[in-house]
Amino acid sequence: MGGNTFGKILRVTTWGESHGNSIGVVVDGVPAGMPLSEADIQRELDRRRPGQSILTTPRKERDRVEILSGVFQGKTLGTPISMLVRNVDVDSAPYEAIKTKPRPGHADFAYWLKFGHVDYRGGGRAAARETVGRVAAGAIAKKLLAAHGVEILGHTVEAAGIAVERELSPAEIRKNVERNPMRCADLKVAGRMKDAVLEAAADGDSTGGVVEVRALGVPAGLGDPVFDKLDAEVAHALMSIGSVKAVLIGAGCKFARMRGSEANDPIVLRGGKVVTETNKAGGILGGISTGMPIVARIAVKPTPSITKPQRTVDLARMKETEIQLKGRFDPNICPRIVPVAEAMLALVLADHMLRAGKIDPNRFK
Amino acid sequence: MGGNTFGKILRVTTWGESHGNSIGVVVDGVPAGMPLSEADIQRELDRRRPGQSILTTPRKERDRVEILSGVFQGKTLGTPISMLVRNVDVDSAPYEAIKTKPRPGHADFAYWLKFGHVDYRGGGRAAARETVGRVAAGAIAKKLLAAHGVEILGHTVEAAGIAVERELSPAEIRKNVERNPMRCADLKVAGRMKDAVLEAAADGDSTGGVVEVRALGVPAGLGDPVFDKLDAEVAHALMSIGSVKAVLIGAGCKFARMRGSEANDPIVLRGGKVVTETNKAGGILGGISTGMPIVARIAVKPTPSITKPQRTVDLARMKETEIQLKGRFDPNICPRIVPVAEAMLALVLADHMLRAGKIDPNRFK
Amino acid sequence: MGGNTFGKILRVTTWGESHGNSIGVVVDGVPAGMPLSEADIQRELDRRRPGQSILTTPRKERDRVEILSGVFQGKTLGTPISMLVRNVDVDSAPYEAIKTKPRPGHADFAYWLKFGHVDYRGGGRAAARETVGRVAAGAIAKKLLAAHGVEILGHTVEAAGIAVERELSPAEIRKNVERNPMRCADLKVAGRMKDAVLEAAADGDSTGGVVEVRALGVPAGLGDPVFDKLDAEVAHALMSIGSVKAVLIGAGCKFARMRGSEANDPIVLRGGKVVTETNKAGGILGGISTGMPIVARIAVKPTPSITKPQRTVDLARMKETEIQLKGRFDPNICPRIVPVAEAMLALVLADHMLRAGKIDPNRFK
Amino acid sequence: MGGNTFGKILRVTTWGESHGNSIGVVVDGVPAGMPLSEADIQRELDRRRPGQSILTTPRKERDRVEILSGVFQGKTLGTPISMLVRNVDVDSAPYEAIKTKPRPGHADFAYWLKFGHVDYRGGGRAAARETVGRVAAGAIAKKLLAAHGVEILGHTVEAAGIAVERELSPAEIRKNVERNPMRCADLKVAGRMKDAVLEAAADGDSTGGVVEVRALGVPAGLGDPVFDKLDAEVAHALMSIGSVKAVLIGAGCKFARMRGSEANDPIVLRGGKVVTETNKAGGILGGISTGMPIVARIAVKPTPSITKPQRTVDLARMKETEIQLKGRFDPNICPRIVPVAEAMLALVLADHMLRAGKIDPNRFK
Repeated sequence: MGGNTFGKILRVTTWGESHGNSIGVVVDGVPAGMPLSEADIQRELDRRRPGQSILTTPRKERDRVEILSGVFQGKTLGTPISMLVRNVDVDSAPYEAIKTKPRPGHADFAYWLKFGHVDYRGGGRAAARETVGRVAAGAIAKKLLAAHGVEILGHTVEAAGIAVERELSPAEIRKNVERNPMRCADLKVAGRMKDAVLEAAADGDSTGGVVEVRALGVPAGLGDPVFDKLDAEVAHALMSIGSVKAVLIGAGCKFARMRGSEANDPIVLRGGKVVTETNKAGGILGGISTGMPIVARIAVKPTPSITKPQRTVDLARMKETEIQLKGRFDPNICPRIVPVAEAMLALVLADHMLRAGKIDPNRFK
Repeated sequence: MGGNTFGKILRVTTWGESHGNSIGVVVDGVPAGMPLSEADIQRELDRRRPGQSILTTPRKERDRVEILSGVFQGKTLGTPISMLVRNVDVDSAPYEAIKTKPRPGHADFAYWLKFGHVDYRGGGRAAARETVGRVAAGAIAKKLLAAHGVEILGHTVEAAGIAVERELSPAEIRKNVERNPMRCADLKVAGRMKDAVLEAAADGDSTGGVVEVRALGVPAGLGDPVFDKLDAEVAHALMSIGSVKAVLIGAGCKFARMRGSEANDPIVLRGGKVVTETNKAGGILGGISTGMPIVARIAVKPTPSITKPQRTVDLARMKETEIQLKGRFDPNICPRIVPVAEAMLALVLADHMLRAGKIDPNRFK
Repeated sequence: MGGNTFGKILRVTTWGESHGNSIGVVVDGVPAGMPLSEADIQRELDRRRPGQSILTTPRKERDRVEILSGVFQGKTLGTPISMLVRNVDVDSAPYEAIKTKPRPGHADFAYWLKFGHVDYRGGGRAAARETVGRVAAGAIAKKLLAAHGVEILGHTVEAAGIAVERELSPAEIRKNVERNPMRCADLKVAGRMKDAVLEAAADGDSTGGVVEVRALGVPAGLGDPVFDKLDAEVAHALMSIGSVKAVLIGAGCKFARMRGSEANDPIVLRGGKVVTETNKAGGILGGISTGMPIVARIAVKPTPSITKPQRTVDLARMKETEIQLKGRFDPNICPRIVPVAEAMLALVLADHMLRAGKIDPNRFK
Repeated sequence: MGGNTFGKILRVTTWGESHGNSIGVVVDGVPAGMPLSEADIQRELDRRRPGQSILTTPRKERDRVEILSGVFQGKTLGTPISMLVRNVDVDSAPYEAIKTKPRPGHADFAYWLKFGHVDYRGGGRAAARETVGRVAAGAIAKKLLAAHGVEILGHTVEAAGIAVERELSPAEIRKNVERNPMRCADLKVAGRMKDAVLEAAADGDSTGGVVEVRALGVPAGLGDPVFDKLDAEVAHALMSIGSVKAVLIGAGCKFARMRGSEANDPIVLRGGKVVTETNKAGGILGGISTGMPIVARIAVKPTPSITKPQRTVDLARMKETEIQLKGRFDPNICPRIVPVAEAMLALVLADHMLRAGKIDPNRFK
């Protein structure tokens, strides 16, 4: 069953294999008349791109986005926006040797079980490269949200066992996140994270971590209980990103060890507005946004590609064997997941704002 | 926007407010010819029902299910199965006094922000009672899964700070889970959980915890990347349950602190079948089931209803105030969330098995 | 696959077999705060009900609607509205004799092919009685539309070969349609229609006809090309009604014999507003409403239940046989399809107005 | 709201404006392992292409399709198949002069009302060129159907008032349809059609007609009552094609003048199989396929582009005015609608066969 479309009013369809001709996305349901250029998209794609630092794989993905439809004279038409990025500099040779030997922790094995016939080159559809479409679509959602006062912030809060322990302000995140290769907004912690990541990498290994995304300025009333609750769709969106193994809203797992008197955010008046004094709920109660910042975290598993030898099965001969991957891989994927998680949160929120009448589709006419 | 329908092929629509006339569900897309009786549904509803022990609210929900359509001569028709449970023994009086004073941690505030006009009696649509429909639908999904060799198991693995530390076998879970009011499959831990829960309750407070659900016998190949991945839809389903604040797949948050060499499950041959030696992935790689058991955990926040005084705002007068709830509430909701989480997992899996051709809609003809 | 839900933002799920316990519908996505009572629904159900005249089957369907959820203190809650009508006075005995002998022109044969196990009593899910849920849901949509200046009109324009040849004004339709059993707004033609219908009935036979539905006051801009065009969804909605075999928009089939110069509605200024001078297009161009009245017609086949002997196959013995139905059936279904077609048009339009931001979901707050 | 995706299991998303960079489609949900090449797609696109004869617009659309994803080593991957056709030889100059003067009968006016900002060049998204994506997707559906014994046939049965009066056999359609520019399978009638079309064209005018599509070898049991009935979705699909103003199933409008005894197809045994003796129902009863051929007809309005002067409004100056289009247009669009209607029918049927378990998604593994 086709599962490559996301969203209800704002609908995103991605396509493309890592080493295929190109990769792309169709974004349907964007209100007409919104200014949009390739530069708006390119900016976000450049954040996602590998080869940005010593901490990312050096594959040179130029990733020039081309808008093929849906924009005319610098403004959206209300018709589907099709975007394409050519795949260049792909080297499929290393994958020939292991094409019948699924890499542990990768989707290779599962794709083989599901589809039988697979594109083994560079992970095919299951590769991190698939997120190009998500980020391009997210760039449009972010622009639409920004025009309605909503800001999305993402940052790495833990990597290789090194965690940010204090609460960071939006101002700190905005200022610091792009200043260090870990996209950690606490610069001191960022340095230690980087060291820990490189230490594992030197050992032929990889590390995991935790990424946080927040949305500020989100109107109250988003979310469609009981199944299409805002948190349920945020969880769906974030869990659909490769390598994500947990989604936490607000205080997340900490709730399990709280008492009710501690967990319940008191309701108070601030400047004539009804708000919660604290925000352990992460901006969502009963699946509906309260007007407080939306806060979600994701646990990211270590990059499955490591250079240590690993046990697997040669599916062609049905015999156990060992593989050792060659090349340089992202030793920690958190910094590159930051823009992807931001994109997914932006898509969910833009969709929900349209559903809830908080974005008027006729707004830019 | 209507958000009360879940699933793609097997579609579930729930309705009903806690103190309204009744509560119910329509299950559409069940293959024709499957034996089904009210007893099949009642069994699961009885597990969900409050008043089962000292650990649950004493509200007497008789919860007799009535099948109104879709079943004829003891077998499903392939048409929508409508089920209804009357709301009886409801006492709305306590809610009159607080109808303009939203209870902290409850959805009251968010519903008021979203809808303006709300049913304040007993939490309305946001009450735990809403899960009657989920559990009734889940009972059908479980029966369908059982006919295809899939078993769903749920149990409490942490409550009030007391956690099961060891790996439990399916046999232990089957044997012990209904033998103690916490639905904890380690009976020693269960006793300590219960004590800790009651201690907090005596203090006018509530506690949270963690529930685990597993699915055994799941065929490989379920999940529709890249957005309708199996884990993404499991996350959607579980996060849509009230009080759930985190969803973890397999090793979940522990992945953040692992190295790749530790996180990757080795691929091995066992009895001529390609499997993973360990199952940190929780049975899902790249969003697709591998044939290993599906394992998910949810973090459950403490019941928001507590008898301690709490700060809120009187929305009618727009003044800060305090409320103190009277009555007896579930001091810990985990045991009652177990059947609900099982139901949601069953619904996701049955839907995916239909999508993937693993349940033939013509199977029972 | 579940196919009993219709609509995207306003979502309707119907359930129930003709001779089962009851029949009902869940309407999800209605904005909160709209006044709504059982009387609003009952009025439309009474128009659908059989036994209204000599021209309809005398089965006494009392059809008392019960609202089970979604309405509180006379206003909608924004939660799903569940409505139920008990099936009373059903006599399943006549169906026992023919339960393995599908009635020609009925869905019996197709249901048997699809589902194997079927409810043969009174047509089961395929009976006209299924439209109870549609009409109840449509009553809500009509009320929502009326609050936004949109009016739905339906009437019989042809039956038993007798057709209304002239263009009828909305005033005539409003005035005459409920004044005659054919629901024909031209009273002279209505009489001839009735005679022709009764003549065929006396002959043990039934007749077909054509029903027109119009929507006045529809805002321009509804419709989501290229697949969810307004006319495409109107066609979907109307064709989903039993016995409908053609859907025509505006001049419909007459377009096939026109020239372009005749078919194109000239665009003109009227009172400072850009409109079309004529409305052959039926209010829809390129799948989008133009602000002109929406006009659609449906061709209705003769009631398949006739008392003449008919050839069929006894599926139990796999032998050709003959059946002769006993009882009194609707000799012409057009008058009873009028409220159903109105309901479906109302549902499509309300859904599209919500999608297009022409109904603000926060309107009644 | 995004409306450019069609289908439930097999999902098609089209994009592109007539004079934009390119036009394309993403087809999601095709089973893995099916052989597929660009030649399979090109064959159908060549049938859709203008400039094929004196009867079509001479715009040279080379229409070379490029498959960008979803196919590897000549076989489908089960991932989305993205296809692109560059727009070449476009001359937007003629549209500059009329960009504020909507062409009667075209979607210009409605798009302006809905979106405000539109691509006026060549009809933008509302142009016939949009069907490139439909036909490309339909080519895949046809291939999938053919592998399961289902054949789709389309032909013009009426144009410019000249109609085929007799029933044509599948053999005749296969043999004759591509042998004449009208795609009429009765070669004698075809000649008269062509003359009548050219006569109107010489007069600066255009003509309409009727196209029939049939599907042979369709298994019984397709269709999901009560809303996603097979005929309802066929109507949706066909009505979504530009210029289509009516959809008729089987005997269509003729049912309105029949008696029941004439309309009901007798059920008989033929070669041990239960079938209907006649097929007035067009292969669908109660919204479910019976195993008889599916037969649908569409009424096609005259091409709105004519060279006669027409009245319109200059929206920039809000004054009535007249326009006279220059150039050569399709004098009758029926022949070019044939492959589009075939494509839409193929997409609906392939989707329904997947839903009903009649195509196994694991079939080609």
